[in-house]
Amino acid sequence: MSQPRILDIRKKILNKNDELAHDMRAQFAANGVFVANLVSSPGSGKTELLRRTMIALGDRYVAAAVTGDLATENDAERLAQSGSLTKQILTGTMCHLEADMVANAISDWDLAGIDFLFVENVGNLVCPGDFDLGEDIRVMLVATTEGEDKPLKYPTLINTADVVIINKMDIAEAVECDVPLLERNIHEVRPGAEVFKVSAKTGAGVDEWVDYLQMRFEDKRIQVA
Amino acid sequence: MSQPRILDIRKKILNKNDELAHDMRAQFAANGVFVANLVSSPGSGKTELLRRTMIALGDRYVAAAVTGDLATENDAERLAQSGSLTKQILTGTMCHLEADMVANAISDWDLAGIDFLFVENVGNLVCPGDFDLGEDIRVMLVATTEGEDKPLKYPTLINTADVVIINKMDIAEAVECDVPLLERNIHEVRPGAEVFKVSAKTGAGVDEWVDYLQMRFEDKRIQVA
Repeated sequence: MSQPRILDIRKKILNKNDELAHDMRAQFAANGVFVANLVSSPGSGKTELLRRTMIALGDRYVAAAVTGDLATENDAERLAQSGSLTKQILTGTMCHLEADMVANAISDWDLAGIDFLFVENVGNLVCPGDFDLGEDIRVMLVATTEGEDKPLKYPTLINTADVVIINKMDIAEAVECDVPLLERNIHEVRPGAEVFKVSAKTGAGVDEWVDYLQMRFEDKRIQVA
Repeated sequence: MSQPRILDIRKKILNKNDELAHDMRAQFAANGVFVANLVSSPGSGKTELLRRTMIALGDRYVAAAVTGDLATENDAERLAQSGSLTKQILTGTMCHLEADMVANAISDWDLAGIDFLFVENVGNLVCPGDFDLGEDIRVMLVATTEGEDKPLKYPTLINTADVVIINKMDIAEAVECDVPLLERNIHEVRPGAEVFKVSAKTGAGVDEWVDYLQMRFEDKRIQVA
């Protein structure tokens, strides 16, 4: 029977990942870094949202980002336009980020000088859900172009999300997305999730999301102090 | 060192999958069934394209479909509207379909009475690439809403595709998709791939895709006979 052995080994990898993520979380807290792990389907708009978010935070905070992709440095190059510290993680054939990849990517950064660390996961609505990266919040993006039923069809990842951002609100009408239905489906799978509606392209709604990040950051500072 | 052991076990699973897929391919050929494995991101429009395709084929052929999702029977219900034989595979937390799941799903179907079998994979741009399901063609959908760079950023799956369908052409302009650039990126990663441009929603371009399927079906009949 090979199945149980695989499950055992999978559990071992997860445990190792979780242990490292636990240590990373402590290190982030000690250095006052607030960490958000962004997950979504490919093409939901994570990079553009992140670019805008980092520009908005840039006046008052130091924001940094690591971004995971199978191939290309496109995302890190786009994010670097915000003037922030960025690094690309190339995963090759791997469908998600693991804690050690993030730890390696930021190993030469001085965490004490960073306020926000954003981790842009590989675009995948399933696998990233299993891997804790030491984040404070897991943020899932859902685009209005993806259909209202995605939360119901991919419940495992959304179930681990603290925040759900509905993106591409500017074309919601054009693609006939029933946004209230999408919101109901999000809350059905993940009651209590914080939901924001934005257009990363036009910037609409991004302020509320950035305000929320600042509030969470200040809360963490108070708790740690 | 746990890494090599995992790779060994992964290879074993793949070998087992490939052996079963090989047997299934022989069985499909013996029964004159043409099989297409549809892969894409969540929300690219696989189900709607499939529904239209099966209706279009319905006049002259018998088409059947199995559809994989983590949860919900939504897709099988939508596909059943075409009047075709359909079955939902619920994968739970699994991010892709494997050959044995398809074999189980169709085990009580009479293959001799089926011309086309469509397998709608779990929405995921990475993991389904590793698993042969005994198909004749692997068909990848890319929606104009996902950005032109997706073929470059997710090269492993597209590299295994025989056909690439650009969907949501009806809103390509609204979402400012540079379709010629998207096509160039597809051909850069997967030279020789057959490319179709469709709108599963309006039906535009679907005829060319259905003609192609019929041509491939007739070719297979001639080869097998």
